[in-house]
Amino acid sequence: MPKKADKYEAVSELARRRGFFWPSYEIYGGLSGFISYGHLGTVLKRKVEAKFRDVFVTPLNIQEIESSIVMPAKVLEASGHVEAFKEPMVSCRNCERKFRADHLLQEKAGMTDTETEKLSLEEIVEKITEYEITCPECQGELGTPKYFMTMFSTTIGPYSDAVGYGRPEAAQSIFVDFRRIYETARERLPLGVVQIGHALRNEISPRQGPVRLREFTIADIEFFFDPNEPQCPQLKQFENEKLHLMPTILKQRDSERTLEITVREALQKGYIRTEWQAYFMILAKHFLEALGVPEDKQRFIEKLEWERAHYSAQGYDQEVFLDRWGWTEVSGHNYRTDYDLKRHMEHSGVDMQVFREYEKPVKTKRLVVEPILAKIGPVFKKNASKVASLLSQADPKQIEESILKNGEYIIQGMKILPEYVKISHKDIDETGRRFIPHVVEPSFGVDRLVYVTLEYSYERHGDRTLLKLPRELAPIQISIFPLVRKDGLAKKAKLVSEILAKEDFAVEYDEAGSIGRRYARADEAGTPLCITVDYQSLKDDSVTIRDRDSWKQSRTGIKTLVKSLRDYYKFKKDLEDMGELL
Amino acid sequence: MPKKADKYEAVSELARRRGFFWPSYEIYGGLSGFISYGHLGTVLKRKVEAKFRDVFVTPLNIQEIESSIVMPAKVLEASGHVEAFKEPMVSCRNCERKFRADHLLQEKAGMTDTETEKLSLEEIVEKITEYEITCPECQGELGTPKYFMTMFSTTIGPYSDAVGYGRPEAAQSIFVDFRRIYETARERLPLGVVQIGHALRNEISPRQGPVRLREFTIADIEFFFDPNEPQCPQLKQFENEKLHLMPTILKQRDSERTLEITVREALQKGYIRTEWQAYFMILAKHFLEALGVPEDKQRFIEKLEWERAHYSAQGYDQEVFLDRWGWTEVSGHNYRTDYDLKRHMEHSGVDMQVFREYEKPVKTKRLVVEPILAKIGPVFKKNASKVASLLSQADPKQIEESILKNGEYIIQGMKILPEYVKISHKDIDETGRRFIPHVVEPSFGVDRLVYVTLEYSYERHGDRTLLKLPRELAPIQISIFPLVRKDGLAKKAKLVSEILAKEDFAVEYDEAGSIGRRYARADEAGTPLCITVDYQSLKDDSVTIRDRDSWKQSRTGIKTLVKSLRDYYKFKKDLEDMGELL
Repeated sequence: MPKKADKYEAVSELARRRGFFWPSYEIYGGLSGFISYGHLGTVLKRKVEAKFRDVFVTPLNIQEIESSIVMPAKVLEASGHVEAFKEPMVSCRNCERKFRADHLLQEKAGMTDTETEKLSLEEIVEKITEYEITCPECQGELGTPKYFMTMFSTTIGPYSDAVGYGRPEAAQSIFVDFRRIYETARERLPLGVVQIGHALRNEISPRQGPVRLREFTIADIEFFFDPNEPQCPQLKQFENEKLHLMPTILKQRDSERTLEITVREALQKGYIRTEWQAYFMILAKHFLEALGVPEDKQRFIEKLEWERAHYSAQGYDQEVFLDRWGWTEVSGHNYRTDYDLKRHMEHSGVDMQVFREYEKPVKTKRLVVEPILAKIGPVFKKNASKVASLLSQADPKQIEESILKNGEYIIQGMKILPEYVKISHKDIDETGRRFIPHVVEPSFGVDRLVYVTLEYSYERHGDRTLLKLPRELAPIQISIFPLVRKDGLAKKAKLVSEILAKEDFAVEYDEAGSIGRRYARADEAGTPLCITVDYQSLKDDSVTIRDRDSWKQSRTGIKTLVKSLRDYYKFKKDLEDMGELL
Repeated sequence: MPKKADKYEAVSELARRRGFFWPSYEIYGGLSGFISYGHLGTVLKRKVEAKFRDVFVTPLNIQEIESSIVMPAKVLEASGHVEAFKEPMVSCRNCERKFRADHLLQEKAGMTDTETEKLSLEEIVEKITEYEITCPECQGELGTPKYFMTMFSTTIGPYSDAVGYGRPEAAQSIFVDFRRIYETARERLPLGVVQIGHALRNEISPRQGPVRLREFTIADIEFFFDPNEPQCPQLKQFENEKLHLMPTILKQRDSERTLEITVREALQKGYIRTEWQAYFMILAKHFLEALGVPEDKQRFIEKLEWERAHYSAQGYDQEVFLDRWGWTEVSGHNYRTDYDLKRHMEHSGVDMQVFREYEKPVKTKRLVVEPILAKIGPVFKKNASKVASLLSQADPKQIEESILKNGEYIIQGMKILPEYVKISHKDIDETGRRFIPHVVEPSFGVDRLVYVTLEYSYERHGDRTLLKLPRELAPIQISIFPLVRKDGLAKKAKLVSEILAKEDFAVEYDEAGSIGRRYARADEAGTPLCITVDYQSLKDDSVTIRDRDSWKQSRTGIKTLVKSLRDYYKFKKDLEDMGELL
């Protein structure tokens, strides 16, 4: 429950006033679940994404793709979202307002997320009756809960049966396009693919600003690897690093305690099932540290079986402690196995297996099912080649067993009779293996990251606000002021500003108001350095540089400015190393 | 009509194979109007956007914002899109397929875009009958044309009456949020605001790959200025530059000829109505040149009155010549006046005027309409303050006239009687002016720009493909090869690769296949420079650099590499200046 004038409120006020973010469509009364980024927020968000690429994408040579937000229904039927992406909703019989039934139980019956996730619609009815829960708005009687699909739906083109959805995650385009991506990456494995883009979830009643949005930016990495070669060579350098972990075994005991445990130990004890997932969890910790969140304000909570997404064999949420909402998810780490590729293979009939050559061929006897096209053709007509392809991808053992036992084999609803196929054991020189890669997925909510960055950098000092943004993330890198406008100081300051802009620094020139007010404005925008051109600058071509956090100043020559500033923003120099301290 | 094996086909084949772009949802049979960008395309697109910022955003200190794709119906009703965003559609009575009626007339009756834009539904029926046009798929009889709304619609949240649309342009969020943006920009004017993001148009039957998409990326600049101060100081430097222009006066004569005319002259003759629009058209020409399109393959065509968007008082399309489609729009330049802000002011009741202080107050007599709250309150109840606010924003002259003539004034459907207001002439010290800023809008389709860049850089030399991407845009800046893998060459090449990656160069290490094949792969990906580590590198720490376009090579020391390459990518050096030519 909100406290008054908490950090969220203070950050939001600053965000609106200075152009980080604000609620969308304010002039029309607002629309919950949507925010707009102003000029500072847009750049901050872009820098958070750039940092994400620094930490995850570049070191592993992960391939970035960009695909569409609108998806045809088929894709999300295949992925299981059409069936699974729903929340229990309850309407008031009196005022007809609608609510998340599980949220009402959390608020009114003190149940935890873990407890409500488990409930069926019938059990929700029982709990509502047991706790005598009524409409939070009008105290009216609540109706029967039903599931509400939380994807935005639309129709694509002029035919009303061409249903489409707004994608609820960026991952599915990666799975659907896997064959293309794998080919353009010259068929290497392991292979990481990332997409950063808008996604949509039609939340029933979102109320938490940038933390729970209907339209948000997601950064999904799908990391494909051979399940027979699950080792992550990069992990070695981090294996003694510690994570704050709450595996299900602790969680089921309902303890709030996390383990502080090395990655190596977490893997040995089976708390984390794959090395790649452990590796990404460590990187996720580093990433949040780079955004300004110390290690002890982060933790990883394992999801219980019924809490996990439908595609997940193991899932950890990375949580960050926020002033208003307590522990809040910022990323999810799921072991998606071969679930998605397999589903798309089944639904599309397109082979999603990869082939890896052995060093030399292996002699082997293998059960082989060969479709007899002369039989299949007349029976399945235009579907014949699809049937043949499905048969060649299916497990021969299953086909044989089913035909022996039932006298038929059913594939995607089509009946295969014994005379349609030839089943035999053959001597084969196997040149390699065919398999569906497994996937580990780290997935980040970018808007939450932007908010977290702002909250962790927000400080008040007396009546002044300071945004201690990490220097790599500051939307404005340098503010440039003339001490006064006259006597050629403004002209010289503009010149300095142009020199720096040409070298790709993000600069702002400001000549309005007193120097004190200008410093205050820069501190509030999170600008790490301010450069002032004063009367001495006219004499010796020097300027003062002032540090946002320490308020210390040093004097340095304009000539060496570019080099010094470049080093500063690459963390090779601090203010002390940039001239003479004043 | 497509020719066979034209440039579009060749570019598309390369794009699919190397990971620039491909049709989305291929494994499910594809979905026209949607493409996916692979790893090279994603970076190329990002660099095209970065170049856009270099040319337009940074020099004018334009503020970038990021808002939502899903918009509530209210916004797009106010903007006029719900009414105006539609296309004539016709269905086949036999096979029930649906088509753009105007496109059929263009294809079957040889009509031009300009001609079909003008037709009413009745006139379309006449033309279909006159030219005996039937279904292009089955020759069936065509039904009665009707309008199809080309926005994607959805519902927001659990209430079925909360209609939303996918935004058809990025501009509207800028208008809706204008007050906030203007405040965070410290109320300066002129003020440019930009948004680059996905937008949606539910085309009836798109068939042109990246050139006509249902989901696309748009870059909209809304440039706000005081209509009383329409001068663009930046224009001076370009006033003698020439544009290829086809103003309506020529177009109406149905001439294909463009004028080659200086900006100054185009303004003097009234071909371009505002200086800011002329300025952005010049920048647009420079921008396309930077993407590789020479001046003589670009032109600006003025839209006739009935071709213009509903919000436009003057509109030019920038067109680029494409191999398959001929002259093709890549950007639109519209003078939107105060249309959008005014509409949002009327629909929301929120004042969108800005206030500009005079240097000193001006004594003036002014007609003033003051709402009498004691009367308005009881009549309009909870709408009373909205009525008062609307009255204070309305033109006092209009109110006075209407009341004198009709005995009432109607504002947003509400009747204002004479006794509700006090109308008088007052002596006033006017301290400034209140007005709605005017807007000039340059708007770019980013996907088309990416395609144009690829087509203009595509060359075949014998059996080799060369992508002469401008060096600033190349997704991979440098490919690094060991001559052979053994003898420590691979190790040294990897080291060079790491050094450059650390200095933020986009590098690719490649050791697979012969050097010739590796060069060919790099040429096809548009990589400007290849660095090879050979046996001499082990002796004297030098490498060879090979230029994509000239195939020339030079030898240079590893020590000076970073500096040289930085200069090369800032256009301060060419290959010749980077060591000894071989």
